[in-house]
Amino acid sequence: MLNYFDYAATSPMSPRAISSFVKCAESYPFNPSSIHKGGLKAHKKLDETRERTASILRIKPEQVVFTSGATEAINIVFSSLLWHKTPGKVIISRIEHDAVRSFIPLLKEKGWKVAMLKAKRGFVDPEDVKRELTEDTRLVAVMNVNNVNGAIQDTHKIAAVIREFEKSIKHKIIFFSDSVQALAKTGLDLDGSGVDAASFSAHKISGPRGVGMLYIRNKNLIRPLSAAGGQESAIRGGTENLAGIVSFSEALEEAYENRDEKEKRIITLSERIKDELSALGLEINSEGLTSPYIINVSSPLPSEVFSRMLDDKGYAISSGSACSNNAKKGENIIEAMGYGNRRAESSVRISLSDYTEEGEVDGLINAIKEIIHGI
Amino acid sequence: MLNYFDYAATSPMSPRAISSFVKCAESYPFNPSSIHKGGLKAHKKLDETRERTASILRIKPEQVVFTSGATEAINIVFSSLLWHKTPGKVIISRIEHDAVRSFIPLLKEKGWKVAMLKAKRGFVDPEDVKRELTEDTRLVAVMNVNNVNGAIQDTHKIAAVIREFEKSIKHKIIFFSDSVQALAKTGLDLDGSGVDAASFSAHKISGPRGVGMLYIRNKNLIRPLSAAGGQESAIRGGTENLAGIVSFSEALEEAYENRDEKEKRIITLSERIKDELSALGLEINSEGLTSPYIINVSSPLPSEVFSRMLDDKGYAISSGSACSNNAKKGENIIEAMGYGNRRAESSVRISLSDYTEEGEVDGLINAIKEIIHGI
Repeated sequence: MLNYFDYAATSPMSPRAISSFVKCAESYPFNPSSIHKGGLKAHKKLDETRERTASILRIKPEQVVFTSGATEAINIVFSSLLWHKTPGKVIISRIEHDAVRSFIPLLKEKGWKVAMLKAKRGFVDPEDVKRELTEDTRLVAVMNVNNVNGAIQDTHKIAAVIREFEKSIKHKIIFFSDSVQALAKTGLDLDGSGVDAASFSAHKISGPRGVGMLYIRNKNLIRPLSAAGGQESAIRGGTENLAGIVSFSEALEEAYENRDEKEKRIITLSERIKDELSALGLEINSEGLTSPYIINVSSPLPSEVFSRMLDDKGYAISSGSACSNNAKKGENIIEAMGYGNRRAESSVRISLSDYTEEGEVDGLINAIKEIIHGI
Repeated sequence: MLNYFDYAATSPMSPRAISSFVKCAESYPFNPSSIHKGGLKAHKKLDETRERTASILRIKPEQVVFTSGATEAINIVFSSLLWHKTPGKVIISRIEHDAVRSFIPLLKEKGWKVAMLKAKRGFVDPEDVKRELTEDTRLVAVMNVNNVNGAIQDTHKIAAVIREFEKSIKHKIIFFSDSVQALAKTGLDLDGSGVDAASFSAHKISGPRGVGMLYIRNKNLIRPLSAAGGQESAIRGGTENLAGIVSFSEALEEAYENRDEKEKRIITLSERIKDELSALGLEINSEGLTSPYIINVSSPLPSEVFSRMLDDKGYAISSGSACSNNAKKGENIIEAMGYGNRRAESSVRISLSDYTEEGEVDGLINAIKEIIHGI
């Protein structure tokens, strides 16, 4: 039996999400772009699902662009910069996901200036954003909830700084916020926060993989490299993955049911984990306003050793973000947060979901106790 | 009851593809990039599925890049051109899918020369390719099987022309062939044809939507704009859609079972449709070596009128490609093939699959007879 504490890497599809996928694949097997009755029926289902999704997130249906995942949403936003005739400047936090940071080589190659914002303990200081804003700035990217330690940014304040600066220049600056770990997990406020664009992933909320969403306040802000078949208002081409989209929307609805109760329960579990691990001498790298779903701690052992020992006891945690296991290059995010090299190299991530049970948490804490006492 | 003759737009997921999706989502709910036991198990399943897919297509596992669909595979190849420090030339057939043609504005904006190859009746003359090849040519894109009339290109000859020309220059020219309608439908010969890269879609062969594949002969030919999380050998980032990929591979295996028998049956049905519609006075726009799965014909009525009348009788065909319904711009492909404006504006596409039954074909022919006799 695997006790799973790596929900931030991926969350198993919920039974509701699976059955919704199957039902849709069977009932709407047509191409929403076809103009025969079958196609129109599929298109109607797509429209309804877009409205349902928008309604849950309290945004407008036309602000929802379904994608193949958060990475593609990020790709659409960043690659759209390449349309500019002259390179400008982008401002990126040092703790962004690889999917964002990996655009830096391309942008630099094309003559763009890239400013990297520090993020002490995971928090970007809006004053630092202010200091970096220049007339040629085209995009600011600061993630909403950090995937490594759960730090929740003050996107409202960052947006306010950008909006204020914009008054002195002639163009809009896109404020992009990768919000994968914020979806159905924090008080996500897309409309109120002043964010222009945000990326989301279905499989982090027990929906299907291969499905995600780009929130875009105003579609005129973005021009994709290619409109392809013109789907999703010509922002994301390719036959719409209707069953996947419907399943995503089902998972979203499920996640938002009794949201407050669920979050309260997770906050309790999360605080308990922090308290107990702290008492064991582990250092907590999730400090201040962080998501209760993500707890980053440093043990006296190297990340890989500690996580392997837990794995052997039947507990799956992460010794880094799953994606960074492929890259194994670039900066360690915990180090970038100013926690120092030793703490960074012994850091692990424990991530929870609404499916996490108290008994599992008891087991995890006991397993960690055994490891620590055995050192 | 809808009689479906629009399989080239999308093909309903087969029961085997659906159950394989569900089984994998339930049995391998982990992130293949995670390094705990669950992640390793998922990664092993991904490796096995890549090998299975490669084996069916008689290519190497490392030549398989799983994507979110054909559009994304096309995007990876075309956007990789943007890494070049100086713009060069691309050679594209006039009858490419929108997903390819929609890169033309970007390439032109960035200073690239774009040569458009004519394709009489759907066939590109390798001599025309030869004439366009220049020292600064970086990519030639000619689709394998045309999605509108089914024309099967001689990719071997086109590749030979490119390979011969390459001897006189210092760099490789990528020969890209969008092969969506060729998969499990014609004698696809990736390794033997000399194609460097090809795009595929799972949902055109009764697999899931949101899954596709990029075949790449040699990964060094392509550098994606961003490696994102480093998945798929850093060519396509984003958490691997394992259930989708496994389901795709199941659909592929299913499609290749008794391939020859299936194809013989479809050739018979296809020839019958052509003969009967010809006898009714319809003009056949699928001439010469075309896929038996795609039949393009022109009736005396405008495309939309004819297809709507058939729709009313319960038969779903296409009055164009599904994707082009979104765009409604650019050139009509049948016109680009030299069939003339009148014939183009009255053309419709009937597309079959291995699931098409003889009785349905009888019904379709009768329905068309009724319409034609009623004019």
